[in-house]
Amino acid sequence: MLEAFFKPKGVAIIGASRDPHKLGYGVVRNLTEFRYKGPVYPVNASASEILGLTCYPSVSQVPDPVDLAIIVVPAPNVVEMVDLCGKRGIKYVIVTSGGFGETGEEGKARERLLKLTADKHSIRLIGPNCIGSIDTHTPLNTTFVMGMPIPGDIGFTSQSGAMVAAVIDWARGAGIGFSRIVSLGNQVDVTEREMIASMVNDPHTKVITAYVEGVSNGREFMAIAEEAARKKPLIVLKGGTGEGGAKAVASHTGSLAGSADAYRAAFHRSGILTATTMEELFDWARALAWQPLPKGNRIAVLTNAGGPAILAVDALEASGLKLAPLTEATRAHLKPRIPAAGSVNNPVDVLAGSGPATYALALDTLLSDPTVDAAIVIQAPQDWFLPESLAEVIGEVAANHKKPVLAAIMGMASVQKALEILHRKKVPNFAFPERMASTLKAMLNRYHWLESQRESHISLSGIDHLEAQSAIYHQDFVRLMEAYGIRFPAFELAQTAKMAAAKASQIGYPVVMKLISPDFTHKSDVGGVLLNLKTQDDVLQGFDAIMNMAKMIRSDARIEGVLIQKMMPKGHEILVGLKQDAQFGPLIVVGTGGVEVELVRDVAMGIAPLSHQQATELLGRTIAGKRLNGWRSIPPGDWNAVTDAVVRLSQIGADFPEIKELEINPLLVLDPGNGAFALDVRGVI
Amino acid sequence: MLEAFFKPKGVAIIGASRDPHKLGYGVVRNLTEFRYKGPVYPVNASASEILGLTCYPSVSQVPDPVDLAIIVVPAPNVVEMVDLCGKRGIKYVIVTSGGFGETGEEGKARERLLKLTADKHSIRLIGPNCIGSIDTHTPLNTTFVMGMPIPGDIGFTSQSGAMVAAVIDWARGAGIGFSRIVSLGNQVDVTEREMIASMVNDPHTKVITAYVEGVSNGREFMAIAEEAARKKPLIVLKGGTGEGGAKAVASHTGSLAGSADAYRAAFHRSGILTATTMEELFDWARALAWQPLPKGNRIAVLTNAGGPAILAVDALEASGLKLAPLTEATRAHLKPRIPAAGSVNNPVDVLAGSGPATYALALDTLLSDPTVDAAIVIQAPQDWFLPESLAEVIGEVAANHKKPVLAAIMGMASVQKALEILHRKKVPNFAFPERMASTLKAMLNRYHWLESQRESHISLSGIDHLEAQSAIYHQDFVRLMEAYGIRFPAFELAQTAKMAAAKASQIGYPVVMKLISPDFTHKSDVGGVLLNLKTQDDVLQGFDAIMNMAKMIRSDARIEGVLIQKMMPKGHEILVGLKQDAQFGPLIVVGTGGVEVELVRDVAMGIAPLSHQQATELLGRTIAGKRLNGWRSIPPGDWNAVTDAVVRLSQIGADFPEIKELEINPLLVLDPGNGAFALDVRGVI
Repeated sequence: MLEAFFKPKGVAIIGASRDPHKLGYGVVRNLTEFRYKGPVYPVNASASEILGLTCYPSVSQVPDPVDLAIIVVPAPNVVEMVDLCGKRGIKYVIVTSGGFGETGEEGKARERLLKLTADKHSIRLIGPNCIGSIDTHTPLNTTFVMGMPIPGDIGFTSQSGAMVAAVIDWARGAGIGFSRIVSLGNQVDVTEREMIASMVNDPHTKVITAYVEGVSNGREFMAIAEEAARKKPLIVLKGGTGEGGAKAVASHTGSLAGSADAYRAAFHRSGILTATTMEELFDWARALAWQPLPKGNRIAVLTNAGGPAILAVDALEASGLKLAPLTEATRAHLKPRIPAAGSVNNPVDVLAGSGPATYALALDTLLSDPTVDAAIVIQAPQDWFLPESLAEVIGEVAANHKKPVLAAIMGMASVQKALEILHRKKVPNFAFPERMASTLKAMLNRYHWLESQRESHISLSGIDHLEAQSAIYHQDFVRLMEAYGIRFPAFELAQTAKMAAAKASQIGYPVVMKLISPDFTHKSDVGGVLLNLKTQDDVLQGFDAIMNMAKMIRSDARIEGVLIQKMMPKGHEILVGLKQDAQFGPLIVVGTGGVEVELVRDVAMGIAPLSHQQATELLGRTIAGKRLNGWRSIPPGDWNAVTDAVVRLSQIGADFPEIKELEINPLLVLDPGNGAFALDVRGVI
Repeated sequence: MLEAFFKPKGVAIIGASRDPHKLGYGVVRNLTEFRYKGPVYPVNASASEILGLTCYPSVSQVPDPVDLAIIVVPAPNVVEMVDLCGKRGIKYVIVTSGGFGETGEEGKARERLLKLTADKHSIRLIGPNCIGSIDTHTPLNTTFVMGMPIPGDIGFTSQSGAMVAAVIDWARGAGIGFSRIVSLGNQVDVTEREMIASMVNDPHTKVITAYVEGVSNGREFMAIAEEAARKKPLIVLKGGTGEGGAKAVASHTGSLAGSADAYRAAFHRSGILTATTMEELFDWARALAWQPLPKGNRIAVLTNAGGPAILAVDALEASGLKLAPLTEATRAHLKPRIPAAGSVNNPVDVLAGSGPATYALALDTLLSDPTVDAAIVIQAPQDWFLPESLAEVIGEVAANHKKPVLAAIMGMASVQKALEILHRKKVPNFAFPERMASTLKAMLNRYHWLESQRESHISLSGIDHLEAQSAIYHQDFVRLMEAYGIRFPAFELAQTAKMAAAKASQIGYPVVMKLISPDFTHKSDVGGVLLNLKTQDDVLQGFDAIMNMAKMIRSDARIEGVLIQKMMPKGHEILVGLKQDAQFGPLIVVGTGGVEVELVRDVAMGIAPLSHQQATELLGRTIAGKRLNGWRSIPPGDWNAVTDAVVRLSQIGADFPEIKELEINPLLVLDPGNGAFALDVRGVI
């Protein structure tokens, strides 16, 4: 559907120029210099030809075939030109010109008009304020940026034109190939979502990369990303991860879960690999485009020197990867084939004197070993043989196996030819071996995500939707949760000390008393919670103490009463929270509960709704989860009861987008089989 | 003292060869090709000349001047050659040949003989099994490795020859200059310590970098590193940071503090900046060699595009750096000097159309702003002006100020000339802005370390050394700590239930009872601790319960008795531990105490002895420290009592190297002014 932006039948450049310092010249130059094979029509009323091409006074006069126009005229004239394109029957337009939404109110109004004009003619529009599109295989280059990367397998879409310009220049210097590159600008029409979806259908694009600053529709973005990630690796570098100052929030969950966390959780769930730097983005992209995925975390290291292998192993271990143990058979096979002073244990060291044949034999043996999930091959510079010979054998052996192979033919000055061979043979190379670890980890993450897509989901039972609706209406979060099957200890509300004592003896001692007031969100900070009250006297005095405290701190506090609750046995205290993220909807936070939540920050986050498996995975990432499994003298807790509560809270989040924040803190988790009880609940609608 | 390795009067190559495939040829080639100006004497009995140089049949016949010999003969002949060198009066020898300690027992014996032979003649020796030395300013290249980096300011010493070869090749490709490069090999004589110390005295070396796999004398290494770091930045990449499997340990401290932690703590204390990758090592080195240190963490970002600035800000914030707020005067000055649509807030965006003059004005304004500690300048590729013009103005403005400036003239293909200019003007450049943050952080860390060197130290009072000696002799850790002024709650030991009850009433109820047995290290795991015993009956029953438990679990357990201790009020529970590291001596561990120590891993580590300031800094890095300052409803604890205990335990570690592990867990910390008490102590001598 967006194919004409990359494979047009003919291209008009509205605002083409003969002045080499103008963008309108650069676009014509790039279209011709990079050998676009279709007709190119410069449109300029005051020139007869540009770069040897016939000029047209208006787009109306451009002959067939033409289906794509690049507009590089000043902002005030853009809308008119789009209108003329529409009348001429051109359905695809790239507006390079700036001066729209990015410049203020006037620009925003102009941008709305631009959108309306495009819609009127059913024109698909990229931009405004963008750099344009590149397809190295067509070939097509509608940008004004000097140079074009070599053809390759990486598709790159960017919300920042500057990043596109930088990537083009860097890719040319580093010899990294791309399939498509597109700068989306202000995204008045074509968005990053649609562009990602379109790259799935481009046969030359083996991996999709994106620089994203924000997404316009979080849930739709997730759906499209997930769909894309099922078919091709999708790697995103997210700009703007800082939180930029604290906001006023009502619950721990609110203060823990910033928008950057929501992005991380959403990306994780959608199968997006999140890179942290541009270098990482393209390190991962090359490996994912070229090599199969590892099926586990056991890595074989093949080297001709100790130092670089040590650095590689350090980096692997820091990324949670392991050295493959290797079988006895592998060691026995290697023994006579490498120098006696070498090592047949992982890392396998063939020493400086060994040639490419020894590397070939050793690599083949390692890739045949069932304990090896992936291999990395290191060559420190040596004078015994040409590095290009090693590049040849690495590529050849790797192609014979179905496991990923990464190379570190180290150095820069003497290895250019070797790198070209490796690139041709689709083995990514790294100047120093440390960066390989994050790449292998990303590949493994993708493998695990694809595997997780096969998990079955079961639906929840015991949910009373009508009751929940009514509870929402009354802003009664306890009733809401009970309607969703989340359990609470027995409790009663009392407005007088006498009533409190009566309720307490009804519930049975010992009891807990809590102030119920919309004006105190963190009750335990202000003495609003009394524990382990054992007698009627305790309750009578406690009631008065709580009331006095509340009035002392805030004389106009609205007080609904004091909650009398059964004092529960000791157990694990977990926080289970829900926060509505503006972009991605309900975000679930799980971790260590209590008053120290923000201090300890032992939490993991996911996007609702969660399956039991997803809740288990989330909880497993936290120390709270490890503790819940039993740790030393700490007895285990009822894990299933926790994940059940997490799943049910996440379902509330999915069903009621009007809930802004909802939090159980703590969720008291008793011994296995004895369940988990929400002790305190806070919420904001 | 080691200067002759870099500035010899004349060089003999023993084992020089005419075969271009032999190392003995490569060394002669590098000496001549890279224009060493002194005489070069190839030594080879069967050749008359090599590469046009007169050959000598033996080193004995080499004429004056000669003070350095490179030995590249097979291992069995090396010792004889060193002996001949000694007789000839050559006092500096590099043994390139391998076949020594790295190859097994025979090689180890040969290495010992080599050392004895060198010592006999007072020869200083680098190697064996090394690559040699480079001084780009002399110039001198005694290696056989192809190529040599351009002259520069970075000194690099490496325990891995392969890393040297890789760095040379990479530095040539990347255009990074070095002053000296040296491969130390098996370090039979000259060690990394001496080499680091010698680089301090080389005027061309502005920053010292090292690849280190292990150090042979930790405390001496620390002393030399600290001495060097006071004068020049010292950056180390440590290979082998993984722990490689758990070991049997007696205390939490033992299991928490691995050797990698000891390295980290020792490096931190000695002012070493620890890089995690080779790229980081040289990113930092360039910046530290060329730019002044920032005096704070407030960074100004100057850019011509949003995307890269966003990535820079993300990386800065992730590294704990901040955007400088900028003064009103700065904004007012910038306003008329940058395009109206640009931004005068940090990041300052001059937009794509601005030229080098605008950059110059803006950078000068930012560096003049008192709220700015450092500036980074970003240029996304553009077609308006030459990137080399920007390089010129960045260098010129930066030189006029005393604040660090880093550049990201982005891309690769079109910016080579700009990079050369920046390098000449001593402004480090980064292809993408994300890597700048770790560099600025490293610079700031160095600033803080240099500042911390000015702190005054006060000596400890109230230590009874005689009593401590006696306690050590009796392995009585409680007495030892009391002799060092660490406080304990009142306690008594009882061997019978009746005695326990008597002691309890003497101490006063409620009490705590603990099993005292060398066979149970983690008492609370096995029911060996009873809390809050309020009556004589509780104590009588408790005693029997503990004894029964101990005998049930291990019938032959050695039981010294049961400790009766005053039950203390609630407070913070801190772990303070000491572990003797094989390399760096006593390592101090501080953090959250209790039974969950290994699970939560909230600890910081330092090398003993610690000052109060160092103890405060250590504690401040942990959540336990933040909690100790008071957090929400958690009251603050007696901070000074904790740091006092930490300092005193660290002094024990410094005074008694025979203590392998010693741990207080928990140290109970009461309200400010009320002190801290060691509740449980474990130790191994």
